[in-house]
Amino acid sequence: MKGYAVVGDWGTSRLRLFRVENGVLAARCDGPGIGAVGGAAEAAFADAIAPWLADGLPESITLCGMAGARDGWVEAPYADCPADAEAWRQAAMRFDWRGIPVAIMAGLACEGADGIPDVMRGEETQMFGAIARDLALGTGRHMIVLPGTHNKWSLVEDGRITAFRTMPTGELFALLRDQSTLGPKVDATNPVEEATGFAEGLDRAHDGKLLQSLFAARAMRLRQGRSPDWALGYLSGLLIGCEIAEMRGMVGTTDSIILIGDARLSARYAQALDRQGVATHMLDGDACALAGLGLTEI
Amino acid sequence: MKGYAVVGDWGTSRLRLFRVENGVLAARCDGPGIGAVGGAAEAAFADAIAPWLADGLPESITLCGMAGARDGWVEAPYADCPADAEAWRQAAMRFDWRGIPVAIMAGLACEGADGIPDVMRGEETQMFGAIARDLALGTGRHMIVLPGTHNKWSLVEDGRITAFRTMPTGELFALLRDQSTLGPKVDATNPVEEATGFAEGLDRAHDGKLLQSLFAARAMRLRQGRSPDWALGYLSGLLIGCEIAEMRGMVGTTDSIILIGDARLSARYAQALDRQGVATHMLDGDACALAGLGLTEI
Repeated sequence: MKGYAVVGDWGTSRLRLFRVENGVLAARCDGPGIGAVGGAAEAAFADAIAPWLADGLPESITLCGMAGARDGWVEAPYADCPADAEAWRQAAMRFDWRGIPVAIMAGLACEGADGIPDVMRGEETQMFGAIARDLALGTGRHMIVLPGTHNKWSLVEDGRITAFRTMPTGELFALLRDQSTLGPKVDATNPVEEATGFAEGLDRAHDGKLLQSLFAARAMRLRQGRSPDWALGYLSGLLIGCEIAEMRGMVGTTDSIILIGDARLSARYAQALDRQGVATHMLDGDACALAGLGLTEI
Repeated sequence: MKGYAVVGDWGTSRLRLFRVENGVLAARCDGPGIGAVGGAAEAAFADAIAPWLADGLPESITLCGMAGARDGWVEAPYADCPADAEAWRQAAMRFDWRGIPVAIMAGLACEGADGIPDVMRGEETQMFGAIARDLALGTGRHMIVLPGTHNKWSLVEDGRITAFRTMPTGELFALLRDQSTLGPKVDATNPVEEATGFAEGLDRAHDGKLLQSLFAARAMRLRQGRSPDWALGYLSGLLIGCEIAEMRGMVGTTDSIILIGDARLSARYAQALDRQGVATHMLDGDACALAGLGLTEI
Protein backbone atom coordinates (compact mmCIF):
# COMPACT_ATOMS: atom_id res chain seq x y z
CA MET A 1 0.00 0.00 0.00
CA LYS A 2 1.19 3.47 -0.88
CA GLY A 3 1.00 6.28 1.61
CA TYR A 4 -1.65 8.83 0.78
CA ALA A 5 -3.20 12.06 2.01
CA VAL A 6 -6.82 13.18 1.81
CA VAL A 7 -7.63 16.77 0.90
CA GLY A 8 -11.01 18.23 0.16
CA ASP A 9 -13.57 20.99 0.08
CA TRP A 10 -16.63 20.36 2.23
CA GLY A 11 -19.23 22.94 1.28
CA THR A 12 -22.85 23.43 2.27
CA SER A 13 -24.17 21.39 -0.64
CA ARG A 14 -21.43 18.86 -1.40
CA LEU A 15 -18.25 17.18 -0.20
CA ARG A 16 -15.45 16.82 -2.73
CA LEU A 17 -12.53 14.68 -1.62
CA PHE A 18 -9.24 13.98 -3.34
CA ARG A 19 -6.75 11.19 -2.66
CA VAL A 20 -3.21 12.40 -3.10
CA GLU A 21 -0.21 10.08 -3.52
CA ASN A 22 3.31 11.52 -3.63
CA GLY A 23 1.87 14.98 -4.13
CA VAL A 24 -0.17 13.85 -7.16
CA LEU A 25 -3.95 13.49 -7.45
CA ALA A 26 -4.75 9.77 -7.53
CA ALA A 27 -8.53 9.53 -7.05
CA ARG A 28 -11.56 11.52 -6.03
CA CYS A 29 -14.91 10.90 -4.45
CA ASP A 30 -17.96 12.97 -3.59
CA GLY A 31 -20.30 12.98 -0.62
CA PRO A 32 -23.12 14.92 0.99
CA GLY A 33 -22.75 18.61 1.85
CA ILE A 34 -22.47 19.84 5.44
CA GLY A 35 -26.02 21.13 5.10
CA ALA A 36 -27.29 17.56 4.62
CA VAL A 37 -25.45 15.70 7.38
CA GLY A 38 -27.21 17.38 10.30
CA GLY A 39 -24.50 17.38 12.96
CA ALA A 40 -23.19 13.90 12.03
CA ALA A 41 -20.24 15.20 10.04
CA GLU A 42 -17.66 12.75 11.44
CA ALA A 43 -19.72 9.69 10.51
CA ALA A 44 -20.52 11.12 7.07
CA PHE A 45 -16.82 11.77 6.47
CA ALA A 46 -15.86 8.23 7.53
CA ASP A 47 -18.54 6.84 5.22
CA ALA A 48 -17.31 8.91 2.30
CA ILE A 49 -13.70 7.69 2.54
CA ALA A 50 -14.55 4.14 3.66
CA PRO A 51 -13.13 2.58 0.43
CA TRP A 52 -9.85 4.42 1.00
CA LEU A 53 -9.76 3.58 4.71
CA ALA A 54 -10.04 -0.09 3.72
CA ASP A 55 -6.58 0.30 2.10
CA GLY A 56 -5.10 1.77 5.24
CA LEU A 57 -5.21 5.07 7.07
CA PRO A 58 -4.23 8.30 5.28
CA GLU A 59 -1.15 10.15 6.50
CA SER A 60 -3.07 13.40 6.81
CA ILE A 61 -6.44 14.99 6.16
CA THR A 62 -6.87 18.62 5.06
CA LEU A 63 -10.32 20.11 4.57
CA CYS A 64 -11.59 23.57 3.75
CA GLY A 65 -15.06 25.09 3.56
CA MET A 66 -18.07 24.59 5.79
CA ALA A 67 -16.37 21.63 7.49
CA GLY A 68 -15.06 24.37 9.80
CA ALA A 69 -18.40 26.12 10.36
CA ARG A 70 -20.19 26.09 13.70
CA ASP A 71 -22.51 23.38 12.38
CA GLY A 72 -19.69 21.60 10.54
CA TRP A 73 -17.30 18.92 11.76
CA VAL A 74 -15.01 20.90 14.09
CA GLU A 75 -15.26 24.67 14.21
CA ALA A 76 -12.25 26.46 12.76
CA PRO A 77 -11.53 30.14 13.33
CA TYR A 78 -11.70 32.94 10.80
CA ALA A 79 -8.40 34.60 9.93
CA ASP A 80 -8.85 38.37 9.83
CA CYS A 81 -8.22 40.36 6.67
CA PRO A 82 -5.77 41.47 5.49
CA ALA A 83 -4.43 37.89 5.46
CA ASP A 84 -1.68 36.23 3.47
CA ALA A 85 -1.42 32.50 2.82
CA GLU A 86 0.91 31.94 5.75
CA ALA A 87 -1.32 33.65 8.33
CA TRP A 88 -4.29 31.76 6.95
CA ARG A 89 -2.54 28.37 7.13
CA GLN A 90 -1.45 29.03 10.69
CA ALA A 91 -5.04 29.72 11.71
CA ALA A 92 -6.20 26.21 10.77
CA MET A 93 -7.87 24.02 13.41
CA ARG A 94 -5.69 20.97 13.92
CA PHE A 95 -6.63 17.77 15.77
CA ASP A 96 -6.18 14.01 15.61
CA TRP A 97 -8.87 11.69 14.29
CA ARG A 98 -8.21 7.95 14.67
CA GLY A 99 -4.56 8.93 15.10
CA ILE A 100 -4.49 10.85 11.80
CA PRO A 101 -3.52 14.55 11.86
CA VAL A 102 -6.42 16.61 10.56
CA ALA A 103 -6.32 20.28 9.52
CA ILE A 104 -9.54 22.15 8.95
CA MET A 105 -8.56 25.35 7.22
CA ALA A 106 -9.67 28.68 8.63
CA GLY A 107 -12.22 30.87 6.94
CA LEU A 108 -11.64 34.58 6.43
CA ALA A 109 -13.39 37.51 8.08
CA CYS A 110 -13.27 41.17 7.21
CA GLU A 111 -15.05 44.40 7.97
CA GLY A 112 -16.00 46.65 5.08
CA ALA A 113 -15.29 50.36 4.95
CA ASP A 114 -19.05 50.76 5.48
CA GLY A 115 -18.87 48.78 8.74
CA ILE A 116 -20.50 45.63 7.40
CA PRO A 117 -18.71 42.50 8.59
CA ASP A 118 -18.32 39.59 6.21
CA VAL A 119 -17.13 35.99 6.23
CA MET A 120 -16.12 33.25 3.82
CA ARG A 121 -15.29 29.57 4.15
CA GLY A 122 -13.78 27.80 1.19
CA GLU A 123 -13.32 30.58 -1.36
CA GLU A 124 -10.15 31.77 0.38
CA THR A 125 -8.61 28.36 -0.39
CA GLN A 126 -9.31 28.83 -4.09
CA MET A 127 -7.87 32.33 -4.00
CA PHE A 128 -4.67 31.35 -2.21
CA GLY A 129 -4.45 28.46 -4.66
CA ALA A 130 -4.76 30.85 -7.59
CA ILE A 131 -1.97 32.96 -6.12
CA ALA A 132 0.20 29.85 -5.63
CA ARG A 133 -0.37 28.79 -9.24
CA ASP A 134 0.28 32.21 -10.79
CA LEU A 135 3.06 34.17 -9.20
CA ALA A 136 1.90 37.34 -11.02
CA LEU A 137 -1.09 37.39 -8.67
CA GLY A 138 1.25 37.61 -5.71
CA THR A 139 2.23 41.20 -6.47
CA GLY A 140 0.13 44.26 -7.25
CA ARG A 141 -3.59 44.73 -6.94
CA HIS A 142 -6.11 42.25 -8.31
CA MET A 143 -9.81 41.76 -8.10
CA ILE A 144 -11.11 38.19 -7.90
CA VAL A 145 -14.78 37.30 -8.20
CA LEU A 146 -16.00 33.83 -7.28
CA PRO A 147 -19.52 33.48 -8.70
CA GLY A 148 -21.85 31.08 -6.94
CA THR A 149 -24.71 30.96 -4.46
CA HIS A 150 -22.91 33.54 -2.35
CA ASN A 151 -20.58 35.37 -4.73
CA LYS A 152 -17.40 36.77 -3.21
CA TRP A 153 -15.87 39.94 -4.63
CA SER A 154 -12.35 40.10 -3.28
CA LEU A 155 -9.38 42.40 -3.43
CA VAL A 156 -5.92 40.84 -3.43
CA GLU A 157 -3.02 43.19 -2.81
CA ASP A 158 0.58 41.96 -2.87
CA GLY A 159 -0.57 38.41 -2.20
CA ARG A 160 -2.80 39.31 0.72
CA ILE A 161 -6.61 39.18 0.67
CA THR A 162 -7.41 42.65 1.98
CA ALA A 163 -11.19 42.97 1.59
CA PHE A 164 -14.20 41.12 0.26
CA ARG A 165 -17.94 41.40 0.02
CA THR A 166 -20.50 38.60 -0.23
CA MET A 167 -23.27 39.13 -2.78
CA PRO A 168 -25.99 36.48 -2.37
CA THR A 169 -27.04 36.93 -6.00
CA GLY A 170 -27.07 33.22 -6.82
CA GLU A 171 -29.31 32.41 -3.88
CA LEU A 172 -31.67 35.24 -4.81
CA PHE A 173 -31.84 34.02 -8.41
CA ALA A 174 -32.73 30.49 -7.30
CA LEU A 175 -35.45 31.82 -4.98
CA LEU A 176 -36.94 34.00 -7.72
CA ARG A 177 -36.78 31.19 -10.30
CA ASP A 178 -38.20 28.42 -8.14
CA GLN A 179 -40.33 29.99 -5.41
CA SER A 180 -41.69 33.32 -6.61
CA THR A 181 -44.57 34.51 -8.78
CA LEU A 182 -41.99 36.20 -11.02
CA GLY A 183 -39.98 33.18 -12.05
CA PRO A 184 -41.03 30.69 -14.69
CA LYS A 185 -40.20 27.69 -12.44
CA VAL A 186 -38.58 25.92 -15.38
CA ASP A 187 -35.11 25.25 -16.66
CA ALA A 188 -34.44 27.01 -19.92
CA THR A 189 -35.01 24.89 -23.00
CA ASN A 190 -34.66 27.60 -25.63
CA PRO A 191 -31.16 29.04 -25.32
CA VAL A 192 -31.79 31.78 -27.90
CA GLU A 193 -34.78 33.18 -25.98
CA GLU A 194 -32.87 32.88 -22.74
CA ALA A 195 -29.86 34.72 -24.17
CA THR A 196 -32.14 37.50 -25.44
CA GLY A 197 -33.69 37.83 -21.98
CA PHE A 198 -30.24 37.82 -20.37
CA ALA A 199 -29.07 40.69 -22.58
CA GLU A 200 -32.26 42.69 -21.89
CA GLY A 201 -31.84 42.09 -18.16
CA LEU A 202 -28.27 43.41 -18.36
CA ASP A 203 -29.49 46.50 -20.24
CA ARG A 204 -32.18 47.14 -17.68
CA ALA A 205 -29.66 46.84 -14.83
CA HIS A 206 -27.50 49.75 -15.96
CA ASP A 207 -28.71 51.98 -13.10
CA GLY A 208 -28.65 49.21 -10.50
CA LYS A 209 -32.34 49.61 -9.64
CA LEU A 210 -33.21 45.99 -9.00
CA LEU A 211 -36.60 46.22 -7.29
CA GLN A 212 -38.28 48.40 -9.88
CA SER A 213 -37.24 46.13 -12.76
CA LEU A 214 -38.04 42.74 -11.19
CA PHE A 215 -41.76 42.68 -11.89
CA ALA A 216 -41.08 43.12 -15.61
CA ALA A 217 -40.15 39.40 -15.65
CA ARG A 218 -43.87 38.75 -15.20
CA ALA A 219 -45.40 41.81 -16.88
CA MET A 220 -43.45 41.27 -20.11
CA ARG A 221 -44.91 37.76 -20.33
CA LEU A 222 -48.44 39.01 -19.65
CA ARG A 223 -48.32 42.07 -21.88
CA GLN A 224 -45.69 41.44 -24.51
CA GLY A 225 -45.84 37.70 -25.03
CA ARG A 226 -42.35 36.95 -23.75
CA SER A 227 -41.61 33.29 -23.01
CA PRO A 228 -40.66 31.55 -19.75
CA ASP A 229 -37.16 31.09 -21.19
CA TRP A 230 -36.92 34.80 -21.84
CA ALA A 231 -38.01 35.55 -18.26
CA LEU A 232 -35.41 33.16 -16.85
CA GLY A 233 -32.66 34.88 -18.83
CA TYR A 234 -34.01 38.31 -17.92
CA LEU A 235 -33.93 37.60 -14.18
CA SER A 236 -30.37 36.28 -14.45
CA GLY A 237 -29.19 39.28 -16.48
CA LEU A 238 -30.97 41.77 -14.24
CA LEU A 239 -29.47 40.30 -11.05
CA ILE A 240 -25.93 39.94 -12.39
CA GLY A 241 -26.13 43.39 -13.98
CA CYS A 242 -27.33 45.00 -10.75
CA GLU A 243 -24.64 43.18 -8.80
CA ILE A 244 -21.97 44.63 -11.08
CA ALA A 245 -23.59 48.09 -10.99
CA GLU A 246 -23.45 48.04 -7.18
CA MET A 247 -19.81 46.97 -7.22
CA ARG A 248 -18.84 49.44 -9.93
CA GLY A 249 -16.74 51.46 -7.51
CA MET A 250 -14.68 48.41 -6.61
CA VAL A 251 -14.52 47.33 -10.28
CA GLY A 252 -13.32 50.75 -11.33
CA THR A 253 -10.08 50.34 -9.45
CA THR A 254 -8.80 47.50 -11.59
CA ASP A 255 -8.29 46.83 -15.29
CA SER A 256 -9.43 43.26 -15.26
CA ILE A 257 -11.15 40.74 -13.05
CA ILE A 258 -10.26 37.15 -12.36
CA LEU A 259 -13.23 34.77 -12.23
CA ILE A 260 -12.87 31.52 -10.32
CA GLY A 261 -15.57 28.86 -10.34
CA ASP A 262 -18.17 27.11 -12.44
CA ALA A 263 -17.38 27.75 -16.12
CA ARG A 264 -20.97 28.39 -17.26
CA LEU A 265 -21.74 30.90 -14.53
CA SER A 266 -18.33 32.55 -14.90
CA ALA A 267 -19.05 33.00 -18.61
CA ARG A 268 -22.19 34.98 -17.72
CA TYR A 269 -20.19 37.28 -15.48
CA ALA A 270 -17.57 37.63 -18.20
CA GLN A 271 -20.28 38.68 -20.69
CA ALA A 272 -21.78 41.18 -18.24
CA LEU A 273 -18.39 42.68 -17.35
CA ASP A 274 -17.31 42.83 -20.98
CA ARG A 275 -20.32 45.09 -21.69
CA GLN A 276 -18.86 47.48 -19.15
CA GLY A 277 -15.43 47.34 -20.73
CA VAL A 278 -13.92 45.18 -17.99
CA ALA A 279 -11.73 42.30 -19.21
CA THR A 280 -11.92 38.99 -17.38
CA HIS A 281 -9.74 35.94 -17.00
CA MET A 282 -11.29 32.63 -15.92
CA LEU A 283 -9.62 30.08 -13.66
CA ASP A 284 -10.83 26.57 -12.90
CA GLY A 285 -12.31 26.30 -9.40
CA ASP A 286 -11.21 22.73 -8.65
CA ALA A 287 -7.65 23.36 -9.79
CA CYS A 288 -7.45 26.46 -7.59
CA ALA A 289 -8.93 24.62 -4.59
CA LEU A 290 -6.42 21.78 -4.93
CA ALA A 291 -3.55 24.23 -5.17
CA GLY A 292 -4.85 26.00 -2.07
CA LEU A 293 -4.92 22.67 -0.26
CA GLY A 294 -1.24 22.23 -1.00
CA LEU A 295 -1.15 20.23 -4.23
CA THR A 296 1.47 21.61 -6.53
CA GLU A 297 0.93 19.18 -9.40
CA ILE A 298 -2.52 18.20 -10.62
CA MET B 1 -86.26 38.91 2.37
CA LYS B 2 -84.59 42.17 1.58
CA GLY B 3 -82.92 42.71 -1.75
CA TYR B 4 -79.13 42.69 -1.57
CA ALA B 5 -76.04 43.02 -3.70
CA VAL B 6 -72.71 41.23 -3.34
CA VAL B 7 -69.48 43.14 -3.83
CA GLY B 8 -66.00 41.89 -3.16
CA ASP B 9 -62.28 41.75 -3.74
CA TRP B 10 -60.98 38.38 -4.89
CA GLY B 11 -57.24 38.44 -4.63
CA THR B 12 -54.55 35.79 -5.08
CA SER B 13 -54.55 34.82 -1.43
CA ARG B 14 -58.09 35.56 -0.21
CA LEU B 15 -61.66 36.31 -1.16
CA ARG B 16 -63.40 39.09 0.77
CA LEU B 17 -67.13 39.44 0.13
CA PHE B 18 -69.58 42.02 1.40
CA ARG B 19 -73.35 41.86 1.46
CA VAL B 20 -74.87 45.25 0.75
CA GLU B 21 -78.49 46.13 1.55
CA ASN B 22 -79.90 49.51 0.47
CA GLY B 23 -76.38 50.74 -0.20
CA VAL B 24 -75.25 49.85 3.32
CA LEU B 25 -72.84 47.10 4.37
CA ALA B 26 -74.88 44.33 6.07
CA ALA B 27 -72.53 41.36 6.38
CA ARG B 28 -69.22 39.99 5.19
CA CYS B 29 -67.62 36.64 4.58
CA ASP B 30 -64.22 35.40 3.52
CA GLY B 31 -63.15 32.58 1.25
CA PRO B 32 -60.11 31.11 -0.50
CA GLY B 33 -57.94 33.19 -2.82
CA ILE B 34 -57.90 32.70 -6.59
CA GLY B 35 -54.50 31.09 -6.18
CA ALA B 36 -56.04 28.30 -4.10
CA VAL B 37 -59.11 27.39 -6.17
CA GLY B 38 -57.25 26.01 -9.16
CA GLY B 39 -59.61 26.86 -12.03
CA ALA B 40 -62.77 26.09 -10.03
CA ALA B 41 -63.54 29.73 -9.26
CA GLU B 42 -67.27 29.55 -10.00
CA ALA B 43 -67.85 26.65 -7.59
CA ALA B 44 -65.67 28.29 -4.93
CA PHE B 45 -67.65 31.52 -5.26
CA ALA B 46 -70.99 29.68 -4.98
CA ASP B 47 -69.69 27.88 -1.88
CA ALA B 48 -68.57 31.13 -0.28
CA ILE B 49 -71.94 32.85 -0.64
CA ALA B 50 -74.06 29.70 -0.08
CA PRO B 51 -75.54 31.07 3.20
CA TRP B 52 -76.62 34.24 1.40
CA LEU B 53 -77.94 32.33 -1.63
CA ALA B 54 -80.14 30.36 0.77
CA ASP B 55 -81.96 33.67 1.48
CA GLY B 56 -82.50 34.34 -2.19
CA LEU B 57 -80.43 35.47 -5.14
CA PRO B 58 -78.54 38.78 -4.98
CA GLU B 59 -79.57 41.55 -7.36
CA SER B 60 -76.02 42.00 -8.60
CA ILE B 61 -72.47 40.85 -8.05
CA THR B 62 -69.43 43.12 -8.45
CA LEU B 63 -65.92 41.76 -8.00
CA CYS B 64 -62.49 43.23 -8.41
CA GLY B 65 -58.99 41.76 -8.25
CA MET B 66 -57.66 38.45 -9.54
CA ALA B 67 -61.21 37.24 -10.20
CA GLY B 68 -60.61 38.87 -13.58
CA ALA B 69 -57.17 37.33 -14.22
CA ARG B 70 -56.55 34.73 -16.90
CA ASP B 71 -56.62 32.03 -14.22
CA GLY B 72 -59.51 33.67 -12.35
CA TRP B 73 -63.24 33.30 -12.81
CA VAL B 74 -63.85 35.17 -16.09
CA GLU B 75 -61.03 37.16 -17.65
CA ALA B 76 -61.61 40.90 -17.56
CA PRO B 77 -59.59 43.36 -19.66
CA TYR B 78 -57.06 45.89 -18.47
CA ALA B 79 -57.98 49.55 -18.91
CA ASP B 80 -55.01 51.48 -20.23
CA CYS B 81 -53.49 54.35 -18.29
CA PRO B 82 -54.20 57.18 -18.08
CA ALA B 83 -57.62 56.04 -16.88
CA ASP B 84 -60.33 57.79 -14.91
CA ALA B 85 -63.03 56.03 -12.90
CA GLU B 86 -65.54 56.17 -15.71
CA ALA B 87 -63.28 54.59 -18.32
CA TRP B 88 -62.32 51.94 -15.82
CA ARG B 89 -65.93 51.11 -14.94
CA GLN B 90 -66.84 50.86 -18.60
CA ALA B 91 -64.09 48.32 -19.18
CA ALA B 92 -65.59 45.81 -16.72
CA MET B 93 -66.43 42.29 -17.94
CA ARG B 94 -70.19 41.83 -17.57
CA PHE B 95 -72.10 38.55 -17.79
CA ASP B 96 -75.02 36.72 -16.23
CA TRP B 97 -74.59 34.00 -13.67
CA ARG B 98 -77.73 32.09 -12.62
CA GLY B 99 -79.62 35.06 -14.00
CA ILE B 100 -77.73 37.56 -11.82
CA PRO B 101 -75.81 40.38 -13.53
CA VAL B 102 -72.12 40.08 -12.67
CA ALA B 103 -69.45 42.71 -13.22
CA ILE B 104 -65.82 41.79 -12.88
CA MET B 105 -63.95 45.04 -12.78
CA ALA B 106 -61.09 45.67 -15.17
CA GLY B 107 -57.47 45.84 -14.09
CA LEU B 108 -55.16 48.62 -15.19
CA ALA B 109 -52.20 48.46 -17.53
CA CYS B 110 -49.53 51.04 -18.21
CA GLU B 111 -46.17 51.37 -19.88
CA GLY B 112 -43.42 53.14 -17.97
CA ALA B 113 -41.26 55.89 -19.44
CA ASP B 114 -38.50 53.27 -19.43
CA GLY B 115 -40.58 50.95 -21.63
CA ILE B 116 -41.45 48.47 -18.88
CA PRO B 117 -45.11 47.42 -19.04
CA ASP B 118 -47.02 46.94 -15.81
CA VAL B 119 -50.37 45.65 -14.61
CA MET B 120 -52.56 45.71 -11.52
CA ARG B 121 -55.79 43.99 -10.52
CA GLY B 122 -57.54 45.19 -7.40
CA GLU B 123 -55.45 48.15 -6.29
CA GLU B 124 -57.11 50.42 -8.88
CA THR B 125 -60.43 49.79 -7.10
CA GLN B 126 -58.94 51.03 -3.83
CA MET B 127 -57.50 54.08 -5.53
CA PHE B 128 -60.70 55.04 -7.33
CA GLY B 129 -62.46 54.46 -4.01
CA ALA B 130 -60.05 56.81 -2.26
CA ILE B 131 -60.74 59.45 -4.90
CA ALA B 132 -64.50 58.94 -4.51
CA ARG B 133 -64.23 59.35 -0.73
CA ASP B 134 -61.99 62.43 -0.80
CA LEU B 135 -62.77 64.91 -3.52
CA ALA B 136 -59.45 66.69 -2.92
CA LEU B 137 -57.76 63.67 -4.52
CA GLY B 138 -59.72 64.28 -7.70
CA THR B 139 -57.75 67.38 -8.61
CA GLY B 140 -54.03 68.03 -8.73
CA ARG B 141 -51.18 65.56 -8.57
CA HIS B 142 -50.95 62.85 -5.89
CA MET B 143 -48.79 59.86 -5.25
CA ILE B 144 -50.45 56.78 -3.79
CA VAL B 145 -48.49 53.78 -2.52
CA LEU B 146 -50.27 50.50 -1.77
CA PRO B 147 -47.86 48.37 0.26
CA GLY B 148 -48.26 44.62 0.03
CA THR B 149 -46.84 41.54 -1.65
CA HIS B 150 -46.61 43.50 -4.89
CA ASN B 151 -46.51 47.16 -3.88
CA LYS B 152 -47.97 49.63 -6.35
CA TRP B 153 -46.52 53.13 -6.60
CA SER B 154 -49.07 55.18 -8.50
CA LEU B 155 -49.46 58.71 -9.79
CA VAL B 156 -52.94 60.23 -9.77
CA GLU B 157 -53.38 63.42 -11.76
CA ASP B 158 -56.72 65.26 -11.87
CA GLY B 159 -58.55 62.10 -10.87
CA ARG B 160 -56.88 59.87 -13.46
CA ILE B 161 -54.35 57.15 -12.71
CA THR B 162 -51.60 58.11 -15.11
CA ALA B 163 -48.70 55.79 -14.23
CA PHE B 164 -47.70 53.10 -11.77
CA ARG B 165 -44.91 50.69 -11.01
CA THR B 166 -45.07 47.34 -9.23
CA MET B 167 -42.36 46.71 -6.65
CA PRO B 168 -42.43 43.06 -5.49
CA THR B 169 -40.76 43.98 -2.21
CA GLY B 170 -43.22 42.12 0.00
CA GLU B 171 -42.78 38.90 -1.93
CA LEU B 172 -39.00 39.26 -1.79
CA PHE B 173 -39.10 39.84 1.96
CA ALA B 174 -41.20 36.70 2.51
CA LEU B 175 -38.80 34.64 0.37
CA LEU B 176 -35.76 35.95 2.24
CA ARG B 177 -37.39 35.43 5.64
CA ASP B 178 -38.76 31.96 5.05
CA GLN B 179 -36.68 30.29 2.33
CA SER B 180 -33.18 31.76 2.35
CA THR B 181 -29.98 31.25 4.33
CA LEU B 182 -30.16 34.96 5.25
CA GLY B 183 -33.51 35.02 7.01
CA PRO B 184 -34.08 33.87 10.55
CA LYS B 185 -37.16 31.80 9.55
CA VAL B 186 -39.00 33.07 12.63
CA ASP B 187 -41.62 35.64 13.43
CA ALA B 188 -40.26 38.44 15.56
CA THR B 189 -40.84 38.00 19.28
CA ASN B 190 -38.69 40.87 20.52
CA PRO B 191 -40.12 44.07 19.06
CA VAL B 192 -37.29 46.23 20.42
CA GLU B 193 -34.60 44.20 18.66
CA GLU B 194 -36.69 44.10 15.53
CA ALA B 195 -37.20 47.86 15.56
CA THR B 196 -33.43 48.38 16.01
CA GLY B 197 -32.77 46.11 13.04
CA PHE B 198 -35.40 47.92 10.99
CA ALA B 199 -33.79 51.31 11.64
CA GLU B 200 -30.32 49.94 10.80
CA GLY B 201 -31.70 48.42 7.59
CA LEU B 202 -33.16 51.81 6.62
CA ASP B 203 -29.79 53.49 7.30
CA ARG B 204 -27.98 50.94 5.22
CA ALA B 205 -30.41 51.43 2.33
CA HIS B 206 -29.61 55.12 1.79
CA ASP B 207 -27.73 54.44 -1.43
CA GLY B 208 -30.19 51.84 -2.70
CA LYS B 209 -27.54 49.12 -2.98
CA LEU B 210 -29.60 46.13 -1.97
CA LEU B 211 -27.44 43.19 -3.02
CA GLN B 212 -24.28 44.31 -1.25
CA SER B 213 -26.10 44.83 2.06
CA LEU B 214 -28.23 41.67 2.14
CA PHE B 215 -25.59 39.27 3.44
CA ALA B 216 -25.09 41.47 6.50
CA ALA B 217 -28.35 39.97 7.84
CA ARG B 218 -26.36 36.78 8.34
CA ALA B 219 -22.86 38.15 8.91
CA MET B 220 -24.00 40.49 11.70
CA ARG B 221 -25.43 37.47 13.55
CA LEU B 222 -22.26 35.44 13.06
CA ARG B 223 -19.79 38.21 13.83
CA GLN B 224 -21.56 40.74 16.01
CA GLY B 225 -24.01 38.63 17.96
CA ARG B 226 -27.18 40.15 16.49
CA SER B 227 -30.39 38.24 17.14
CA PRO B 228 -32.83 36.63 14.73
CA ASP B 229 -35.32 39.41 15.58
CA TRP B 230 -32.73 42.01 14.67
CA ALA B 231 -32.08 40.25 11.34
CA LEU B 232 -35.80 40.14 10.55
CA GLY B 233 -36.13 43.87 11.16
CA TYR B 234 -32.92 44.57 9.24
CA LEU B 235 -34.13 42.73 6.13
CA SER B 236 -37.45 44.58 6.28
CA GLY B 237 -35.80 47.99 6.71
CA LEU B 238 -33.20 47.30 4.02
CA LEU B 239 -35.82 46.25 1.47
CA ILE B 240 -38.27 49.07 2.18
CA GLY B 241 -35.43 51.60 2.29
CA CYS B 242 -34.01 50.41 -1.04
CA GLU B 243 -37.49 50.47 -2.56
CA ILE B 244 -37.90 54.11 -1.54
CA ALA B 245 -34.36 54.96 -2.69
CA GLU B 246 -35.16 53.52 -6.13
CA MET B 247 -38.41 55.49 -6.32
CA ARG B 248 -36.86 58.70 -5.02
CA GLY B 249 -37.29 60.41 -8.39
CA MET B 250 -41.01 59.71 -8.37
CA VAL B 251 -41.25 60.67 -4.66
CA GLY B 252 -39.45 63.93 -5.31
CA THR B 253 -42.31 65.25 -7.39
CA THR B 254 -44.79 65.33 -4.54
CA ASP B 255 -44.95 66.76 -1.03
CA SER B 256 -46.71 63.83 0.56
CA ILE B 257 -47.70 60.27 -0.15
CA ILE B 258 -50.99 58.51 0.51
CA LEU B 259 -50.64 54.99 1.84
CA ILE B 260 -53.52 52.57 1.34
CA GLY B 261 -53.54 49.10 2.89
CA ASP B 262 -52.63 47.08 5.93
CA ALA B 263 -52.06 49.45 8.86
CA ARG B 264 -48.96 47.74 10.25
CA LEU B 265 -47.14 47.58 6.94
CA SER B 266 -48.25 51.11 6.03
CA ALA B 267 -46.77 52.35 9.32
CA ARG B 268 -43.38 50.93 8.29
CA TYR B 269 -43.52 52.81 5.01
CA ALA B 270 -44.60 55.94 6.87
CA GLN B 271 -41.56 55.62 9.16
CA ALA B 272 -39.21 55.07 6.24
CA LEU B 273 -40.62 57.99 4.24
CA ASP B 274 -40.59 60.27 7.26
CA ARG B 275 -36.82 59.74 7.54
CA GLN B 276 -36.56 61.17 4.04
CA GLY B 277 -38.75 64.14 4.93
CA VAL B 278 -41.80 62.87 3.06
CA ALA B 279 -45.12 63.21 4.90
CA THR B 280 -47.65 60.41 4.59
CA HIS B 281 -51.37 60.02 5.07
CA MET B 282 -52.83 56.55 5.68
CA LEU B 283 -56.17 55.32 4.35
CA ASP B 284 -57.95 52.10 5.28
CA GLY B 285 -57.72 49.53 2.49
CA ASP B 286 -61.12 47.91 3.03
CA ALA B 287 -62.95 51.24 3.19
CA CYS B 288 -61.29 52.33 -0.06
CA ALA B 289 -62.09 49.01 -1.77
CA LEU B 290 -65.75 49.24 -0.76
CA ALA B 291 -65.97 52.80 -2.02
CA GLY B 292 -64.38 51.72 -5.30
CA LEU B 293 -66.99 48.98 -5.58
CA GLY B 294 -69.73 51.60 -5.35
CA LEU B 295 -70.59 51.76 -1.67
CA THR B 296 -71.01 55.34 -0.58
CA GLU B 297 -71.84 54.65 3.07
CA ILE B 298 -69.92 52.12 5.13
